[in-house]
Amino acid sequence: MERKGNLMTYRPDIKVLDATVRDGGLVNNFRFTDEFVKSLYLTNIRAGVDYMEMGYLADTDIFKPEDFGDWKFCKEESIRRIVGNNDTDMKLSVMADVGRANLQRDLHPKEESVLDMVRVATYINTMPAAIEMIEYAHNLGYETTCNIMAISKADTNDIEEALSLLVNSSVNAVYIVDSYGALFPEQIQKLSQMYVGAMEQAGKLVGIHAHNNQQMAFANTVEACSMGASYLDATIGSMGRGAGNCAMELLLGFLKNPKYNLAPVLKFYEEHILKLKEDGLKWGYDVQYLLTGKMNLHPSSAIAFTAENRTDYSDFYHQLFDLE
Amino acid sequence: MERKGNLMTYRPDIKVLDATVRDGGLVNNFRFTDEFVKSLYLTNIRAGVDYMEMGYLADTDIFKPEDFGDWKFCKEESIRRIVGNNDTDMKLSVMADVGRANLQRDLHPKEESVLDMVRVATYINTMPAAIEMIEYAHNLGYETTCNIMAISKADTNDIEEALSLLVNSSVNAVYIVDSYGALFPEQIQKLSQMYVGAMEQAGKLVGIHAHNNQQMAFANTVEACSMGASYLDATIGSMGRGAGNCAMELLLGFLKNPKYNLAPVLKFYEEHILKLKEDGLKWGYDVQYLLTGKMNLHPSSAIAFTAENRTDYSDFYHQLFDLE
Repeated sequence: MERKGNLMTYRPDIKVLDATVRDGGLVNNFRFTDEFVKSLYLTNIRAGVDYMEMGYLADTDIFKPEDFGDWKFCKEESIRRIVGNNDTDMKLSVMADVGRANLQRDLHPKEESVLDMVRVATYINTMPAAIEMIEYAHNLGYETTCNIMAISKADTNDIEEALSLLVNSSVNAVYIVDSYGALFPEQIQKLSQMYVGAMEQAGKLVGIHAHNNQQMAFANTVEACSMGASYLDATIGSMGRGAGNCAMELLLGFLKNPKYNLAPVLKFYEEHILKLKEDGLKWGYDVQYLLTGKMNLHPSSAIAFTAENRTDYSDFYHQLFDLE
Repeated sequence: MERKGNLMTYRPDIKVLDATVRDGGLVNNFRFTDEFVKSLYLTNIRAGVDYMEMGYLADTDIFKPEDFGDWKFCKEESIRRIVGNNDTDMKLSVMADVGRANLQRDLHPKEESVLDMVRVATYINTMPAAIEMIEYAHNLGYETTCNIMAISKADTNDIEEALSLLVNSSVNAVYIVDSYGALFPEQIQKLSQMYVGAMEQAGKLVGIHAHNNQQMAFANTVEACSMGASYLDATIGSMGRGAGNCAMELLLGFLKNPKYNLAPVLKFYEEHILKLKEDGLKWGYDVQYLLTGKMNLHPSSAIAFTAENRTDYSDFYHQLFDLE
């Protein structure tokens, strides 16, 4: 499979999705001020971002509302408080985890909602439940994606089977999600070929959501894009769980599509992201995340290491061998 | 040209070069304590590093010794103070800049020196002077490399001409040097093919020295390696000018050669690199370096921005358009 386009061209099928509130919300339990979210919304519009993810559609039977900010639950009134009727070209998405969302209760018909897209996040072994949620959201009138998480742990045959189920579903796009930040561009190339090869025939698109454990989030996003992925996730300042994500400022600096504009993102970074860091929030590449990424492990132990202000990286490395 | 090896194999021709003192010295004017350099030397031996670069061979007629630490000049007695006779398998290198070194005066015959390799750093337009230095060092008995800097600014025809001069020289290896951190893996792939294609026939090797302006130092090093580059430069904690280099901890975590050992590097990082950061030294990826890298500019303006503790990234971005 040939690369699609080169460094001088651009592809009109590219869709940039800002996941700052959703993945960044995992850093601060979604406790963003309305000023932050509103300013991010205006920034994304000015920057030409195609989709802004407002947060999760989490089930209040499982998560207590008092433990989280509004963006864990994305009630219609919370979103409208920020975006009004969203009379813009930018679309809004929400993420729903298999087993942690109640779409029947919480997702309204599209014509009653300001949301445009529902992204269903699943592990590979819960694909039937994911497809049920996708069909439900599709039937309510939403665009849908399927985000297959922790793909670095999945067996190739299982991925192929999952893709064949998705080809026959109503899903609009399927995401490669490197939850552990374990993958290298060479592997992303192969996965992209597999995903694009399976989805293209059915008129479905492919997306990439990367984590920066090994400083590969941007490189992997560029590689997936080059191999035909259309939906590219990024967060401003890389804000996201653990080592964070592909930085929006790197991605918009790279993409050649004339609709994208880096300057508003830089302004948001200096006015809002720096403040979160000054206030003590911690995320982004560091050696402990390199180690869980390299060993293809969930970042939870590295997140705990960070929270405890530990710097004994070599001891941590030896401890990780017990988790493999 | 096919990739050489894959993620499960390793290539015995790989040589890892630690440039922490040399490129990191650009951050602190080479004022490292002997304890730091000695500990780094022992760390590199334990880690299986192939070459340790001790610093620059700078001309004291141009640079005042009192303005810098010893590793700007790499006198034989300074090096021996750390390594004795270096009775180890690790080799030692020094860098000499075209126009800023006096090899005739400062480089002794190999049999009188503990150094093994001289790396000549040059811009593409001073290649004849570089080759003269290479031949001089070669005739004294040293291994030599030619490090063609700022390659992202060079014209393809000029690169081809430079490579044809080097093919006919005594040089052992030629480096791709992305001084501005401007290049993407796709470009590194093409350059690697060009360099390896030119050098292979003459039994010469290729190297890569990357900068991390766009978080691509590691990705570009992996890409060059995959396309056949053998000499891979890295620094512990990415310590190097501006956005820094490919991190040794990432590189050794990636390479499959059983001789390499990550644990000593992690120990050095926690004991010595963290301390330099606590003491206020600044280097590494940040938005200002992203911007000079993206615009293919020398990092000097971003280094000044950093030194002034500025955070007005969007103003800085607009100012850079005047430097293009």
